[in-house]
Amino acid sequence: MKVTVEDSNIFLQKASLLAQEFAKDAVERDKAGGTPKIQRDKLRESGLLKLLIPEQYGGDGQPWSTVLRIVREFAKVDASLGHLFGYHFLCLARVYLKGSLEQREYFFTETAKNNWFWGNSTNPLQRTCIGKRDGDRVIVNGKKSFSSGSPDADLLLISWVDENSDEYFNGVIPPSRNGVIVHDDWDSIGQRQTGSGTVSFQKVIVEQHEILGNSNLAHSVFSTINPILSQSILANIFVGSAEGAIAEAKEYTTKFSRPWLASGVEKASQDPSTLRQYGEFWVEIESAVSLVEKAADKVDQVWEKEYNLSEEERGECAVLVAAANVLGGKVGLDISNRIFEVMGARSTASKYGFDRFWRNIRTHTLHNPVEYKLRNIGNWVLNNEFPKPGFYS
Amino acid sequence: MKVTVEDSNIFLQKASLLAQEFAKDAVERDKAGGTPKIQRDKLRESGLLKLLIPEQYGGDGQPWSTVLRIVREFAKVDASLGHLFGYHFLCLARVYLKGSLEQREYFFTETAKNNWFWGNSTNPLQRTCIGKRDGDRVIVNGKKSFSSGSPDADLLLISWVDENSDEYFNGVIPPSRNGVIVHDDWDSIGQRQTGSGTVSFQKVIVEQHEILGNSNLAHSVFSTINPILSQSILANIFVGSAEGAIAEAKEYTTKFSRPWLASGVEKASQDPSTLRQYGEFWVEIESAVSLVEKAADKVDQVWEKEYNLSEEERGECAVLVAAANVLGGKVGLDISNRIFEVMGARSTASKYGFDRFWRNIRTHTLHNPVEYKLRNIGNWVLNNEFPKPGFYS
Amino acid sequence: MKVTVEDSNIFLQKASLLAQEFAKDAVERDKAGGTPKIQRDKLRESGLLKLLIPEQYGGDGQPWSTVLRIVREFAKVDASLGHLFGYHFLCLARVYLKGSLEQREYFFTETAKNNWFWGNSTNPLQRTCIGKRDGDRVIVNGKKSFSSGSPDADLLLISWVDENSDEYFNGVIPPSRNGVIVHDDWDSIGQRQTGSGTVSFQKVIVEQHEILGNSNLAHSVFSTINPILSQSILANIFVGSAEGAIAEAKEYTTKFSRPWLASGVEKASQDPSTLRQYGEFWVEIESAVSLVEKAADKVDQVWEKEYNLSEEERGECAVLVAAANVLGGKVGLDISNRIFEVMGARSTASKYGFDRFWRNIRTHTLHNPVEYKLRNIGNWVLNNEFPKPGFYS
Amino acid sequence: MKVTVEDSNIFLQKASLLAQEFAKDAVERDKAGGTPKIQRDKLRESGLLKLLIPEQYGGDGQPWSTVLRIVREFAKVDASLGHLFGYHFLCLARVYLKGSLEQREYFFTETAKNNWFWGNSTNPLQRTCIGKRDGDRVIVNGKKSFSSGSPDADLLLISWVDENSDEYFNGVIPPSRNGVIVHDDWDSIGQRQTGSGTVSFQKVIVEQHEILGNSNLAHSVFSTINPILSQSILANIFVGSAEGAIAEAKEYTTKFSRPWLASGVEKASQDPSTLRQYGEFWVEIESAVSLVEKAADKVDQVWEKEYNLSEEERGECAVLVAAANVLGGKVGLDISNRIFEVMGARSTASKYGFDRFWRNIRTHTLHNPVEYKLRNIGNWVLNNEFPKPGFYS
Repeated sequence: MKVTVEDSNIFLQKASLLAQEFAKDAVERDKAGGTPKIQRDKLRESGLLKLLIPEQYGGDGQPWSTVLRIVREFAKVDASLGHLFGYHFLCLARVYLKGSLEQREYFFTETAKNNWFWGNSTNPLQRTCIGKRDGDRVIVNGKKSFSSGSPDADLLLISWVDENSDEYFNGVIPPSRNGVIVHDDWDSIGQRQTGSGTVSFQKVIVEQHEILGNSNLAHSVFSTINPILSQSILANIFVGSAEGAIAEAKEYTTKFSRPWLASGVEKASQDPSTLRQYGEFWVEIESAVSLVEKAADKVDQVWEKEYNLSEEERGECAVLVAAANVLGGKVGLDISNRIFEVMGARSTASKYGFDRFWRNIRTHTLHNPVEYKLRNIGNWVLNNEFPKPGFYS
Repeated sequence: MKVTVEDSNIFLQKASLLAQEFAKDAVERDKAGGTPKIQRDKLRESGLLKLLIPEQYGGDGQPWSTVLRIVREFAKVDASLGHLFGYHFLCLARVYLKGSLEQREYFFTETAKNNWFWGNSTNPLQRTCIGKRDGDRVIVNGKKSFSSGSPDADLLLISWVDENSDEYFNGVIPPSRNGVIVHDDWDSIGQRQTGSGTVSFQKVIVEQHEILGNSNLAHSVFSTINPILSQSILANIFVGSAEGAIAEAKEYTTKFSRPWLASGVEKASQDPSTLRQYGEFWVEIESAVSLVEKAADKVDQVWEKEYNLSEEERGECAVLVAAANVLGGKVGLDISNRIFEVMGARSTASKYGFDRFWRNIRTHTLHNPVEYKLRNIGNWVLNNEFPKPGFYS
Repeated sequence: MKVTVEDSNIFLQKASLLAQEFAKDAVERDKAGGTPKIQRDKLRESGLLKLLIPEQYGGDGQPWSTVLRIVREFAKVDASLGHLFGYHFLCLARVYLKGSLEQREYFFTETAKNNWFWGNSTNPLQRTCIGKRDGDRVIVNGKKSFSSGSPDADLLLISWVDENSDEYFNGVIPPSRNGVIVHDDWDSIGQRQTGSGTVSFQKVIVEQHEILGNSNLAHSVFSTINPILSQSILANIFVGSAEGAIAEAKEYTTKFSRPWLASGVEKASQDPSTLRQYGEFWVEIESAVSLVEKAADKVDQVWEKEYNLSEEERGECAVLVAAANVLGGKVGLDISNRIFEVMGARSTASKYGFDRFWRNIRTHTLHNPVEYKLRNIGNWVLNNEFPKPGFYS
Repeated sequence: MKVTVEDSNIFLQKASLLAQEFAKDAVERDKAGGTPKIQRDKLRESGLLKLLIPEQYGGDGQPWSTVLRIVREFAKVDASLGHLFGYHFLCLARVYLKGSLEQREYFFTETAKNNWFWGNSTNPLQRTCIGKRDGDRVIVNGKKSFSSGSPDADLLLISWVDENSDEYFNGVIPPSRNGVIVHDDWDSIGQRQTGSGTVSFQKVIVEQHEILGNSNLAHSVFSTINPILSQSILANIFVGSAEGAIAEAKEYTTKFSRPWLASGVEKASQDPSTLRQYGEFWVEIESAVSLVEKAADKVDQVWEKEYNLSEEERGECAVLVAAANVLGGKVGLDISNRIFEVMGARSTASKYGFDRFWRNIRTHTLHNPVEYKLRNIGNWVLNNEFPKPGFYS
């Protein structure tokens, strides 16, 4: 097996430098919540927001594996920024999956040119946004919670249910559109700078060229892979968060931890039981990294297949990504909970913010219940049935 | 097996009513940190601070099992108050264990009469408080961290190392004593209202009658049971916290959780996988409750034996209490981490404060590493050797 | 909490001596399978088979807690004998639960007088035994698997479904009855001497006085507690097996295990990681012991209530017993799997038979799936609904 | 990441066909123990025993990853055959690591030509074989346990300690050499057809050209990678065993398992809780497969480096292989224990032999304690120190 994204990848290197910047005040920003405006602007300036956009539209033409690897890199120091960065591409991808070729060209070219940052306001569990046809355009009323990245977004991916057909649609609008209000009401225990609050829509006009889903391609197998992409992003956030937790714990244990009085060692970093625990962390994280990388490779293949993607290819990828997501979440929760045990009592001081890893993973793992992902995987293992394409599978 | 403390116990009933009061603003107070002055005063007014004090000194003559049961009751809604309440008795007990009969009479009688609330500033891992003999009295200089309950304490249990003999001593002084500064510097991710910050001592005079440990009894087996008591208190805080976590989760699941869209049930509380998880929680908590109650019964026996306590009796109790503490911490961490999975994504909203259970248990379980407690237990199981009496075993 | 059955209990002491006998060739008998005829006869001779029978019928009038404690004692050395002993009383109890007072008097008196050993052939999942009314009596045809204790039984508890009413009945017959064939076909990986094979019935006549379930009492709450009793027996077999596993591991580690070459200790029993693991075992087993004892106390209360038992009392006991069963199985599987890690590579030699603990627990835990027990518990915790009385709840 | 060994690999395909053969009587052979003579001969005939031998010596010049993949393939149906096959190459590799170029040429050419099957009698923990220099040759006396593959071996890799220098040496002799007795005394609960019993040596002459370790190369970094190879083989046996366990469970669940009476489904394979458990198995196994494949890729690199291998390259590989080994063992134990829960009570019938997966993994995981591997990994994670090359690290 070869690692898909080498450490020498120039986009990854650029991202790593940014991550070092983001790390500096990550603890303070976690406490503050709100929007990481400075960091979002640095992402805009970096050019990384066009990573996935094909070269023909002015982008860098990188595969999903590069995006996911960078999501993981950011998540090591700040899971909110990993989240915002990944969801930006998740929104862009919706145009690829559901839009016409003209929409693809328009939105990709403009995004690449202007380094636009996309926000997501499409929570499919909330059927509270209703669209009413008005000639070519649609008038949308209602609201959506969990609208990650909406504050400070240049473009918003939105969704609604047609009042007559009950069909589900996506659209893309600027947040400055009349009737759109991005509420600053996200206050959760984790992922605190993702701005995943409410967006409300009052008689919001969505023009025809902004409505996705009218193309024939919108009914291909390829058009259904959104959950594969979103679960991949989350998996990398979980794994990156766990990697960051281990890195910070390592620094603390070697610099600050005191050997236990019955340990018989001079330094905490020599305690055999501490070594064992770091060994356990590494076995866990290395298995999770292997699985997210294997899954990312599969996602690249699926993405390349585009409209030739078969149900079987989609299904195999969906199962692998679900597994990576489940494992990533499990490993992330375990490690972010246990790091304190290798650091000691003083590591709970608020100033270190070491609990943010657990709070972030705990918050984000709930958006797609493990139980149902496992059943989908199991149904494939046992009955050879692929997960039924839907919002979450 | 009979439960030691019946639900009908009048002290427990009084405590339960207080706990209902404490619950009302527990989330807000957790965010605020600082000292729960109003709640501490209610504890003073309640008379519960004299629970353990023998009737001859004006107390209620209740056994430790009642104290521990009430610690658990408070911890269900507020682990900081459980902690403060339990440590009050831990301090009082030090007089019993190390003091003379005169000291016992004096401090117990005054505490019962005045409903004094004790604070603890004795962290034995920090040998930074030095005592210098000055005739009958001692002059103490230095500082102690982890001084739980020191803010708003009526009396402080302190400790120092004698500058000549390197011997460890305890003393009891009012915090108003010249040279004592109780710093308000506790800011941790959990147990946020325990005031477990620093107390500094500048030429603090401790009078002869305030110095514990001069009595012959101070070298009995009985005098070494402090870690048994402190581990019992912590075990009950862990278990109570977990019970509280389940109770709040239950309320949320039945009132607010939404069934998952693939679940096929109408209410989240009917989802078989949710039922299974609550079943798992209950098996865990019930086993932990059984063990802390069994241990509390043993602690009562040890306490009653007083100076007749044998090494074997101490050892057996120490092993059982260590086991209860380990299990309580493990169960507490597991449940407080997993409750979110039976509540769903919206349960991470800060306003609910559901993460405080995990933060509290995570913080408090670090003060006495599981690894070393397990080794002590294992050494008894395998080699029939009791834990060596010390600060933590 | 007080332990219900003291070590000084004379029946327990008698059982402990027998257990020492049984231990001598337990490994060989496990390999051989078949019927432990000598051991069954020793149980007959011991008088312990009348333990639960009220004194008025010539028995010892002991509560269920004594029976369960002795099941656990036998299971420490031989889970098959624990199983046979426990199921003997499970069969006897069916007369108590379902029979008339005359049947109770007859079967109890005769069992006490003759030290009869009962066998169980009532698997409710198999509806393959059909009863046809023939005047006062019934003619039974069919077969039953999982007929534990049928070989060498003095009396057989059987069951059938009435061909007309589809009602479920129990009966008691001697295995010598015409048409009964006890097949010696039990060959499983565990519980190898329980004789849990097939019994077939060809035109077997069951006389009126042998048919249980005609009494009015048969429809009381009390008549439904069979699953509580069976799950209690199993829980004690699991826990006893785990206790036995630890005891044998301890002996091996201290006598035969070699220190690992990188351990830096002279004896394997000094390796801190080995001590930690024994500590973990003990925390687990002590919690399981506490829970089975707490549950046994509740079973005693339920048994004493007899026909005054309320649905609520039944429900609370059912939940607690289910929890004890789940925990016992979990702890048993974990410990019986892990003991090898504290003994080392040579402990897998067949001659020691250390794998029998895992094989026994693994086999026996499958008869009542954990998943469904947990859901029942969870439904009570979350929705305050008691388990619906049935064959397994 | 790309899979190193494709399903289309012709050696893997040949091995898969053989595995199907081996599967037919694997359960019976497990019960019988002894030597799988027919299967060993089929391996000889297959030509697969020269897989790793460079083409210049008449072999197939395949990398270690192919060997390991085939070990895993055999282990799916018969862990003993996976073991024998893998250890054959482990012995051959010792010539590569420790021998001179002449020895390499001789032993490799002859092995390739004759399809020799090597056996291993080198247990380094047993320093009971003593070598005495006698001119150019050595006289060996003593015995070795855990001599896997010695029965029916064409060549034996042996080891001894020099009576004067206390140095450790390897040699290669035919088992027919005077004084060599291969005892048929292996009777363990698992890996029952590996013939891992005792070989005794009475004045056994080892000729100079049969003694390894005299070459300069014997002191290179490359010469120390034996534990990396052996741990890789074991990791693949564990993972293959777990894969086999899942495959057999799947067949049983779909063909024979009955739905639980409270499940509400018609087929056991539709029970959501069964699906969840298969999902859990797959997440586990897929992570373990990913890690052993990643490690195999690293082993290939290390093997190719040969005498240019640096300490750092060795160290990184050693850590990854240790992690794969630890994870493989953990996953293997968990799955082989839990498969019964998705099959049900009747799956414990001896005729199915489903317990052999657990018995095999349980037996084989003990040969290199997890605790010490984890500490080695942790010491690298925390202190950046590579595992010290030795017999087991």
